[in-house]
Amino acid sequence: MLVVMQEVATEAQIDAVIDRLVGMGFTVHRSTGAVHTVLGGVGPIDQFEPADFEVLDGVQECHRIMSPYKLASRSFRPQGTVVKIGKVEIGGARVVAMAGPCSVENEDQIESSAEVVAKAGASVLRAGAFKPRSSPWSFQGLGEPGLKMIRKAADRNGLLVISEVMNQTQIPLVCEYVDILQIGARNMQNYDLLKEVGKVSKPVLLKRGIAATIEELLLSAEYILSGGNYDVILCERGIRTFETYTRNTMDISAIPVVKKLSHLPMMADPSHGTGRRDSVLPMARAAVAAGADGVLIEVHPDPDRALSDGAQSLYPRQFEELMAQLRSIAPAVGRTL
Amino acid sequence: MLVVMQEVATEAQIDAVIDRLVGMGFTVHRSTGAVHTVLGGVGPIDQFEPADFEVLDGVQECHRIMSPYKLASRSFRPQGTVVKIGKVEIGGARVVAMAGPCSVENEDQIESSAEVVAKAGASVLRAGAFKPRSSPWSFQGLGEPGLKMIRKAADRNGLLVISEVMNQTQIPLVCEYVDILQIGARNMQNYDLLKEVGKVSKPVLLKRGIAATIEELLLSAEYILSGGNYDVILCERGIRTFETYTRNTMDISAIPVVKKLSHLPMMADPSHGTGRRDSVLPMARAAVAAGADGVLIEVHPDPDRALSDGAQSLYPRQFEELMAQLRSIAPAVGRTL
Amino acid sequence: MLVVMQEVATEAQIDAVIDRLVGMGFTVHRSTGAVHTVLGGVGPIDQFEPADFEVLDGVQECHRIMSPYKLASRSFRPQGTVVKIGKVEIGGARVVAMAGPCSVENEDQIESSAEVVAKAGASVLRAGAFKPRSSPWSFQGLGEPGLKMIRKAADRNGLLVISEVMNQTQIPLVCEYVDILQIGARNMQNYDLLKEVGKVSKPVLLKRGIAATIEELLLSAEYILSGGNYDVILCERGIRTFETYTRNTMDISAIPVVKKLSHLPMMADPSHGTGRRDSVLPMARAAVAAGADGVLIEVHPDPDRALSDGAQSLYPRQFEELMAQLRSIAPAVGRTL
Amino acid sequence: MLVVMQEVATEAQIDAVIDRLVGMGFTVHRSTGAVHTVLGGVGPIDQFEPADFEVLDGVQECHRIMSPYKLASRSFRPQGTVVKIGKVEIGGARVVAMAGPCSVENEDQIESSAEVVAKAGASVLRAGAFKPRSSPWSFQGLGEPGLKMIRKAADRNGLLVISEVMNQTQIPLVCEYVDILQIGARNMQNYDLLKEVGKVSKPVLLKRGIAATIEELLLSAEYILSGGNYDVILCERGIRTFETYTRNTMDISAIPVVKKLSHLPMMADPSHGTGRRDSVLPMARAAVAAGADGVLIEVHPDPDRALSDGAQSLYPRQFEELMAQLRSIAPAVGRTL
Repeated sequence: MLVVMQEVATEAQIDAVIDRLVGMGFTVHRSTGAVHTVLGGVGPIDQFEPADFEVLDGVQECHRIMSPYKLASRSFRPQGTVVKIGKVEIGGARVVAMAGPCSVENEDQIESSAEVVAKAGASVLRAGAFKPRSSPWSFQGLGEPGLKMIRKAADRNGLLVISEVMNQTQIPLVCEYVDILQIGARNMQNYDLLKEVGKVSKPVLLKRGIAATIEELLLSAEYILSGGNYDVILCERGIRTFETYTRNTMDISAIPVVKKLSHLPMMADPSHGTGRRDSVLPMARAAVAAGADGVLIEVHPDPDRALSDGAQSLYPRQFEELMAQLRSIAPAVGRTL
Repeated sequence: MLVVMQEVATEAQIDAVIDRLVGMGFTVHRSTGAVHTVLGGVGPIDQFEPADFEVLDGVQECHRIMSPYKLASRSFRPQGTVVKIGKVEIGGARVVAMAGPCSVENEDQIESSAEVVAKAGASVLRAGAFKPRSSPWSFQGLGEPGLKMIRKAADRNGLLVISEVMNQTQIPLVCEYVDILQIGARNMQNYDLLKEVGKVSKPVLLKRGIAATIEELLLSAEYILSGGNYDVILCERGIRTFETYTRNTMDISAIPVVKKLSHLPMMADPSHGTGRRDSVLPMARAAVAAGADGVLIEVHPDPDRALSDGAQSLYPRQFEELMAQLRSIAPAVGRTL
Repeated sequence: MLVVMQEVATEAQIDAVIDRLVGMGFTVHRSTGAVHTVLGGVGPIDQFEPADFEVLDGVQECHRIMSPYKLASRSFRPQGTVVKIGKVEIGGARVVAMAGPCSVENEDQIESSAEVVAKAGASVLRAGAFKPRSSPWSFQGLGEPGLKMIRKAADRNGLLVISEVMNQTQIPLVCEYVDILQIGARNMQNYDLLKEVGKVSKPVLLKRGIAATIEELLLSAEYILSGGNYDVILCERGIRTFETYTRNTMDISAIPVVKKLSHLPMMADPSHGTGRRDSVLPMARAAVAAGADGVLIEVHPDPDRALSDGAQSLYPRQFEELMAQLRSIAPAVGRTL
Repeated sequence: MLVVMQEVATEAQIDAVIDRLVGMGFTVHRSTGAVHTVLGGVGPIDQFEPADFEVLDGVQECHRIMSPYKLASRSFRPQGTVVKIGKVEIGGARVVAMAGPCSVENEDQIESSAEVVAKAGASVLRAGAFKPRSSPWSFQGLGEPGLKMIRKAADRNGLLVISEVMNQTQIPLVCEYVDILQIGARNMQNYDLLKEVGKVSKPVLLKRGIAATIEELLLSAEYILSGGNYDVILCERGIRTFETYTRNTMDISAIPVVKKLSHLPMMADPSHGTGRRDSVLPMARAAVAAGADGVLIEVHPDPDRALSDGAQSLYPRQFEELMAQLRSIAPAVGRTL
């Protein structure tokens, strides 16, 4: 932690800052340069908010130096984390495909979806039973009956299941049916939910919020890790920018950055990342080329009649085409699919 | 709802779109112009997602025309909503000040805060007992004991209480102690929480998320209204932009825009909106000048020692100064304070 | 300038950084803390790019410490700059109103505009003869004949003239007719233009670019100041964010921030800042309440028939109403109008 | 062009809108639906500003329908544009690499750079002689002597030359030395410059501004095309968002979107797009995987001593590695390199 004093800072101001740091439990090292006095401190960095010191008299600027997350940082586990579920490894040599419809709508639809994605080479079936919709008047999902349908369709097709949990009271129920709990972008900072999934023994896929910095994503992962659940998978799914042609702007650069800063696997969701079917293929290719550990793709047997997210769902034949493309790109980054 | 077909759209493509709309329950009006065929539809607009139609063959663009929210729109209650709690009216002629520390820390701190803000003319005491913090290692709030302290301090000083509820399981507890439930920016799209506060009989202050459009804010209000709770107060507290000097960029223009689009009261929180004590006064003045129904201000008896948000908390004397300034601006917009 | 080495940095890495700094002309002060070694340097700070050092082996992070602008900083002229043109003072006790149509269209229109704004109390006539339009097919302005019309209309009504200069070859021509040269938002980083207006003896109003940080705005001002022209007026006119209801998001908080960081006058342009006539009044009031030194307002005698920016141009009676409102707000911030 | 009237619009309001459209030269088609009256118009769409009509009484919303650019749209030349310069084709089957240092610094540096990039397989040498720097105190480029050095180094190594032109007075000079004129991101809306490069017979590479929408990029291309210069190459180089870890956020999705909307070649500049050397390789791979026609890469023989942009310049060996990776990805998208 560093506090840089202003050129004109008085001794009294410097002493006041030192006193406050010492009072918080920091050991302070004072360094008087030609222009500025700089205070370096070692101590309870979690309690140090640079903003609190920047408004003090005589202070020019402050820096935390150490990252505010620990368990999520690459240095905590330099070799990287591989999340293993049965034969599926996320974060390993193989790029993993999770695919399926936005929502489970009925038995036929989910069975047909599962067949399509299994045949094309996906290893995890995705579908939502609890849907966070921006309007209260939109389809909200089938709930528990939906979870049952997903589980059955996955089992019949040799797939794992990932599905979203929207609040902490749903966790026990959702855990009965799924292999991976998904935390949606809107809940990335629902800390009570994060704390609770930190206590379960299922892997958690945590999506980046549309306005979350990479640091905030890692801090949210830290909530889960600090509860004892180390099987956390991160996922880029588009951030909100001024560009409106695509629903979100997919931040592909977050993939190599997260891989550098953290040991956790990092996937990409180009369906939500772009919101447009015609952008999903190029962006899935880009994600794998940039080093993503997997992709999360919306596929629907009949997207034109989907109850939600139809515009971004691939037709079955498009998903097959995508898998073929990814298979040819993976070796360029030393992976398989 | 309007679907504009491409100049080169075939009859078969046009018919396919009409069939799909009719199948969804729309009555379709076809209008063939010199260049484009335009399809207008009346029907279940809540089910209509423009994006779903924009990817159909032959379609150029789609527009929903009617706003996706109903109960939150100005036309639902053109005269505007005034939320009344005892003698306090939010959305009426008087600009309301809600003030207090970020978190309740102990009895002395909250009592001293309550005295300061009551004396300066605030009518509601704000303080958090449950704190959504981006790091799991930061102070998380005192919980129920904190709520008791806030209530006592408010009662002793003739103030109402507003405090945050972070998840739906806390609602009954928080309702025992507060007059207004606060939904924080990070929870603006926590739909399960919104549904539950829609069922209680306490007013709800809903903060705009840092990446939420004005339309999304009104859709989230719609969740609460649709549950039967009509006492909803909205609050601008800064959006996330590329500018980093201030923690967020306070979107003052959202104030007149929301007042035009909706009947709900609209407040402003310049403390979170800027994150810097030295910007709170000018931005609170700006909010009132732009037509805000009230301000939410962080004040701490000793900001330099606050456990959270110290950098943006006003000193007691600054809050007095602010109230004096607001008193002199309010009449310019036909209000009092 | 500070370079913080990583906890694991080797002596060789530290020496390499020191050597490079010394080679650039810095005097380096080494401080070895309990965890990190910190290098502080005094020297040619303009040549120091933190990013260049952050990619070096063993380096954790770098900070420039001193602001990259000098002449534009508040410390260069703590008492603040007042730009004086005849009887008009910008940055003084009086809030200044500059108003007029987006473009000069013909003699009648500009004469009528000048009468309206002079009568309501504006002191400067604004109108463009050279228009930066995003489409090459849009009206591009009248050029020199337009400048003549503006000058005549202003003279007849006792007003000063401000008009935009789009490239450095136009400067001598525009200087013949105007009192203040305007640099538009799109040209805020047109450095060749900035250098040239730095050599003329007319005041320059420099608008903030829609994606420019406050620091970049001050660096662009530095270009003009470093040419010897000290009469620079800054102007907030909206930044680009994800919100689309308003054309831009007016960053009102930039007003107090710029007044704190710099000695230069700071104005606000709510017409471009919002793009909507119905938001101009509340946002102009907000700007003055936040401490703006003046407002730049688009007014048109017949906005429904304006050749450009009609949607954001006030009707004459609205401008009168606005001036009355500003007159009542100014005293609350110790100003007149 | 469509104007949707409000449900409560009066006949007089509808007539007023029709009159105004007819007065502008539009043929208007009125369609009265069950709820809304919709006016469709055919006419001088370039003159139609939706915002101007949206503020009229009784109007709910307006849409332009036709894209505001024509010459830049895919429908103008469905087969796509291939820019040919000698043996190099941009927009053809081969992915093109343009590479070199940010600035030319001296003969040795540029000669060494040219050798490195030619050997690794680039076909165009990039280097700046006129540099747009945000601070007036930073290195501004060598000017004409620099151009001479670049030309010589390119010729000796069988490369073409691309270099930036900052203002219209420099065009003749720069044209003497380069094969492709570059317009930087900061000048994307410097319309006077765009008009002038529209008149020359050299290809122009136009970079997307950091806050420019895809539509604005195509409108700026339209300026050049409308002057008669059809050899325009577009380039994504990062947009400004809230994320600060990377200097900009590279909008990879703009690549497939531009290829769909326009016939012009679309390249990617991951050096400026990320600002960090360690992100350049993954993002260049992502760009090619997403369908980019080429990449623009900063390479420096000794990045640690570069006078500008050192942090984002590749070491020579990294550039070789990148070229090898791109060679293995190109076939997956049906290209070579």
